[in-house]
Amino acid sequence: MITTRDRDAFLVSTVIKLIKRNAVPNLRKVIAKTHSADIARWFPHMRPQEKTLLFKLVAQEDLMGEVLRELNTEDRLLFLEESEPAAIREILRGMAPDDVTDLIAELPDERQEEFLALVEGEASEDVQQLLQYEDKTAGAIMNPQFFSLPEDMTASDAVERVREMADVEMVFYVYVVDAEMRLEGVISLRQLVTTRPDTPLSDIMTTRLYKVHLSTPQEEVASVASRYNILAVPVVGDEDELMGIVTVDDVIDVIRDENTEDMLRMAGTGDVELSSLSVWRNTRARAPWLFASFVGGTAAAYVIGQFEGQLEQFAALTAFIPIIMGMGGNIGTQSSTIIVRGLATGEVDIQERWKVLRREFATGVVLGTMYGLLLGVVAKLRDWTTDATSPYFIRLPIVVTLAIAGNMVLAATLGTVIPIALKRLRIDPAIATGPFVTTSIDVLGIVFYFLLARVILF
Amino acid sequence: MITTRDRDAFLVSTVIKLIKRNAVPNLRKVIAKTHSADIARWFPHMRPQEKTLLFKLVAQEDLMGEVLRELNTEDRLLFLEESEPAAIREILRGMAPDDVTDLIAELPDERQEEFLALVEGEASEDVQQLLQYEDKTAGAIMNPQFFSLPEDMTASDAVERVREMADVEMVFYVYVVDAEMRLEGVISLRQLVTTRPDTPLSDIMTTRLYKVHLSTPQEEVASVASRYNILAVPVVGDEDELMGIVTVDDVIDVIRDENTEDMLRMAGTGDVELSSLSVWRNTRARAPWLFASFVGGTAAAYVIGQFEGQLEQFAALTAFIPIIMGMGGNIGTQSSTIIVRGLATGEVDIQERWKVLRREFATGVVLGTMYGLLLGVVAKLRDWTTDATSPYFIRLPIVVTLAIAGNMVLAATLGTVIPIALKRLRIDPAIATGPFVTTSIDVLGIVFYFLLARVILF
Repeated sequence: MITTRDRDAFLVSTVIKLIKRNAVPNLRKVIAKTHSADIARWFPHMRPQEKTLLFKLVAQEDLMGEVLRELNTEDRLLFLEESEPAAIREILRGMAPDDVTDLIAELPDERQEEFLALVEGEASEDVQQLLQYEDKTAGAIMNPQFFSLPEDMTASDAVERVREMADVEMVFYVYVVDAEMRLEGVISLRQLVTTRPDTPLSDIMTTRLYKVHLSTPQEEVASVASRYNILAVPVVGDEDELMGIVTVDDVIDVIRDENTEDMLRMAGTGDVELSSLSVWRNTRARAPWLFASFVGGTAAAYVIGQFEGQLEQFAALTAFIPIIMGMGGNIGTQSSTIIVRGLATGEVDIQERWKVLRREFATGVVLGTMYGLLLGVVAKLRDWTTDATSPYFIRLPIVVTLAIAGNMVLAATLGTVIPIALKRLRIDPAIATGPFVTTSIDVLGIVFYFLLARVILF
Repeated sequence: MITTRDRDAFLVSTVIKLIKRNAVPNLRKVIAKTHSADIARWFPHMRPQEKTLLFKLVAQEDLMGEVLRELNTEDRLLFLEESEPAAIREILRGMAPDDVTDLIAELPDERQEEFLALVEGEASEDVQQLLQYEDKTAGAIMNPQFFSLPEDMTASDAVERVREMADVEMVFYVYVVDAEMRLEGVISLRQLVTTRPDTPLSDIMTTRLYKVHLSTPQEEVASVASRYNILAVPVVGDEDELMGIVTVDDVIDVIRDENTEDMLRMAGTGDVELSSLSVWRNTRARAPWLFASFVGGTAAAYVIGQFEGQLEQFAALTAFIPIIMGMGGNIGTQSSTIIVRGLATGEVDIQERWKVLRREFATGVVLGTMYGLLLGVVAKLRDWTTDATSPYFIRLPIVVTLAIAGNMVLAATLGTVIPIALKRLRIDPAIATGPFVTTSIDVLGIVFYFLLARVILF
């Protein structure tokens, strides 16, 4: 079976070959036959001068608006840099206001005005309005073009209106509104077609509505769409007036982006752009998170310094530092990942936090005891002695058993408590698995280990 | 603004109160007014006897089929345990074959036959067929009920047929097939409505089709739907014959599940069920992954044992073990998360692996040099001496600088190479960030540190 990716790779190498041979008629044919989303995927593989030729040909086939929507930031900016204002104006005219907004919002602040001036007429107001809404809210991602009709219209007149409205994208539902544009009900296109022609819309509309406010965060918009299996979520203003819709294709993009954001936050990478090849941007995004880990590690170095006398007498203690840190770190990451992901999907309920905490604590106790005893055996085997007065006989195995068990219980507990606490403080719990928290657990684990050693060994 | 979650919490506490008072008429009203997806969310908060009453009332309102689809595994099984075969048969009759399959697939193997016997007529064949397809493929998740018409039919006849087919769920597209059921084209419901009534379907259908095979993995089905913004992906067999469709609501579920799976694999937790409160299941899923970390940690303990002579002379070396491990672990996790997520979304392209590796290597060099020098300064400040013959004067700072820099470069490189290699071997790259790889990096980092110390300090 040929996968999408095999096909992508084949197509892009063909296109690059055609560009090298400057085979314009063949390129045109390929472009005309290819979906805009696929065309957009060619660009990251190309050199700048290859991109320039391709931009020109795509624009000539009238596909540049669609392709632009799918391009990554770097290539979008390159296109805007290279194009004539008149050409850009033409392309913007063919795009939906939410896509234009998306494009302009990505530009450096000082260039936004310049491109906004290229948007004409009614669309210009729409775009300016959309740019006002806070980033990552329903208002910012909605499409202000939707299809609404008054409730006293008949089904057959409504179908007639659907026929006329050719350019509103992705019509699945007809929204029924009152004179103040307040949302009253919704009818699927299918209901409209299958009903008797003279039925008034108010008789067939569903009044059980799942709508969101302009300020609703985008992840909640996505969760409404996916929970109720609806293809478009209506967005209303303060007076319940219909302002726009978020369609299911945008919902899918939101889900993907939110998941990426969560994973990157959990790994402590900051906002890196996955497809960028720039070392500088990559470094700048990641350095601050590593600094948290550096500070924690430095603290650990000072803590260990306090126990240097012990270590000089008893170098074997050092050998178990990596495993105690490692096991604590791993069980802590397990717990916090389960909690963070569960909170994001709704499978872990903040109302049930005590039950969840009890489960994680108990899991920590079971696994901590198990691996603690196992490490005790390892310590005994490593330094085998039958001299009952030697610290290696039983006291060192006891120290490492208790240290790893204690650290695993602590890590599982903190790995649960911290994301739940962050959630209640309305901070994104995904940062709980990052370097800051894991490093703190490391330092606490080491302190606990050396204190145990001081009490039991000396 | 009241969030969905606030509303959920309020509703569930109201329902529990009503159940305690046995207020059946009020409960009926609440159930009738609530979406099945919301009803399903009440169950995890309830005691078994409360669940039993609610199951009964939901069934009386004819909503049990829909609610069942949304319940978690535990509550589904509870319902099936408690219900009469006749009642189950009635409910299964109202469900789509893919939902019934989903339900039966979750049962223990020995009970599947029993429930399969409760599915009647044509649906039974559908379900048996669906159960044959491999888990997590297009065949396993598709709905075998779809809407197809011959190409010589006119638009108006097609609309008439849409009217008749009331019970095929989520009709957005009409698939046009030839006499052998081979897929020829597709028409949106909207195109059908807006075209001249006597136009034959072959004139309005789109022949640029995005279809998948029965054996296509579900994540690729999801990526086809999201890349091409289509609401249903047609699934074909070996002879290109249409077998079913995967609708966008299922695509959203696939995306969520795949992301959860990736995150849990990246955290090395095995297949835990996020919403389960069972300590035993939780422990069993997580223990093997921790074992990988345990083995690595034990190896580290033996490695350090080889350098015990050094450590007895030079206990200060111990102090820097945590920071060297921590910084290596963190930058390695950053790199592998960026690669794993990028491969999953398509933003990192396996064709460009050398460019990506170069970026990560360079990032490792920059960050390693930066934090290496910083740690050199910390080491110097920690053990300040002006005696140029003392190892603390300059040699220890040099050791830790080189150790951390080397370890960070190594970790960033392995964090990139390993997921890319796994991807090329067709193994899920998400396991690359798990305990196995991070522990290996830890051990390598420690060996490198002690070797440096041996060469430079002694």
